[in-house]
Amino acid sequence: MSEKRIKIIENILNANDQIALKNRQRINKAGAYSINLMASPGAGKTSFILATINSLLNENIQIGVIEGDTAPVTIDSDKISAAGMPAVQVNTGGQCHLDSVMIENALDQLPLEDLDLLVVENVGNLICPAAFKLGTHSNILIASVPEGDDKPYKYPNIYRGLDVLIINKIDLLPYLDFDMDYFRKGVEMLNPGLQTFAVSCKTNQGIEDWLSWLRLRISKK
Amino acid sequence: MSEKRIKIIENILNANDQIALKNRQRINKAGAYSINLMASPGAGKTSFILATINSLLNENIQIGVIEGDTAPVTIDSDKISAAGMPAVQVNTGGQCHLDSVMIENALDQLPLEDLDLLVVENVGNLICPAAFKLGTHSNILIASVPEGDDKPYKYPNIYRGLDVLIINKIDLLPYLDFDMDYFRKGVEMLNPGLQTFAVSCKTNQGIEDWLSWLRLRISKK
Repeated sequence: MSEKRIKIIENILNANDQIALKNRQRINKAGAYSINLMASPGAGKTSFILATINSLLNENIQIGVIEGDTAPVTIDSDKISAAGMPAVQVNTGGQCHLDSVMIENALDQLPLEDLDLLVVENVGNLICPAAFKLGTHSNILIASVPEGDDKPYKYPNIYRGLDVLIINKIDLLPYLDFDMDYFRKGVEMLNPGLQTFAVSCKTNQGIEDWLSWLRLRISKK
Repeated sequence: MSEKRIKIIENILNANDQIALKNRQRINKAGAYSINLMASPGAGKTSFILATINSLLNENIQIGVIEGDTAPVTIDSDKISAAGMPAVQVNTGGQCHLDSVMIENALDQLPLEDLDLLVVENVGNLICPAAFKLGTHSNILIASVPEGDDKPYKYPNIYRGLDVLIINKIDLLPYLDFDMDYFRKGVEMLNPGLQTFAVSCKTNQGIEDWLSWLRLRISKK
């Protein structure tokens, strides 16, 4: 009985991965670089996307955003649209992560051929998003310092699968008991040598280093 | 086909609710008051439990804690044990919430008959925990101000089912763009008249008001 159940779950994951692969091919064909942006609620995903958009404004880089939410709210996608970039809001209907089918459908709503960069803002959550491939080129997590320095130890799975880590809200460090060495030690244990940028989307500190990394991956049209 | 599927999901929920009811009866029989404490990762659940334990130290109130984690880490349960109270760590094996069966098993590991208060620290997440009854008397959410003022609008389900809301880390308000009126308006829309306490577990501000509420619900043995 339990063996049968395991097999079914594997099949579902494979279906997701197959569509993720198709998404990747489609994004590659369009010549865009793509990011799966994950974080806890309120870690600053939308602020980070806005900081990226605003800092690249004069560089003629087209950025499209897919906004994942568990409820039919357009707070985040409205902010992206107000910044002048195309955004699609995906309501997961209570589900705690995006999956590759949702991305497939969202891609139909974006001017993909015109985009240089596609950012997917996943649902705010450190657990479920780690298990579902979307077809993007890189997995990026935003860790916000007010969340505490023990998160890598508590949510190891999401840290293991990362290509880039953004440490956000560092302007708040003077007011917090956040042990950066302990935090980085936990990250290093799970994902040795992980590319990490410490930033503040409020003061723009560290954003330029992140952009240098990003520019190398974007081929402008 | 889809009707059949809906029925199966209902049955699963009912199984969870049935065991939740048994948990409640068991907790009632032991004469304990019980809380399901939910929040985003790093909102301060463990700090809030520790502030509660430490503030009640001289009142001869026995507090037991069930710590839900998605990974086999004992960081939080070790802190509770160090504060002199019994704690059980439940590893959900990657699942994004506790359920009533996990609580049933955890209750076997606690000296339930001796407890005046049972606190269940749910998995850090604003989505999944809202959907599963555990059998506790009240659902309490900790909203942390660095997470931003838009969370009620983005995670309406969890706010709808609350008995108490704790607004934590208010010592950080001077350094944040947090619109308390906008936040409270969102909460009021979803859960009119919700009992709310604004606190800082760092400075202990507001903790005494919360304790006044809590003491009324605890019958000491």
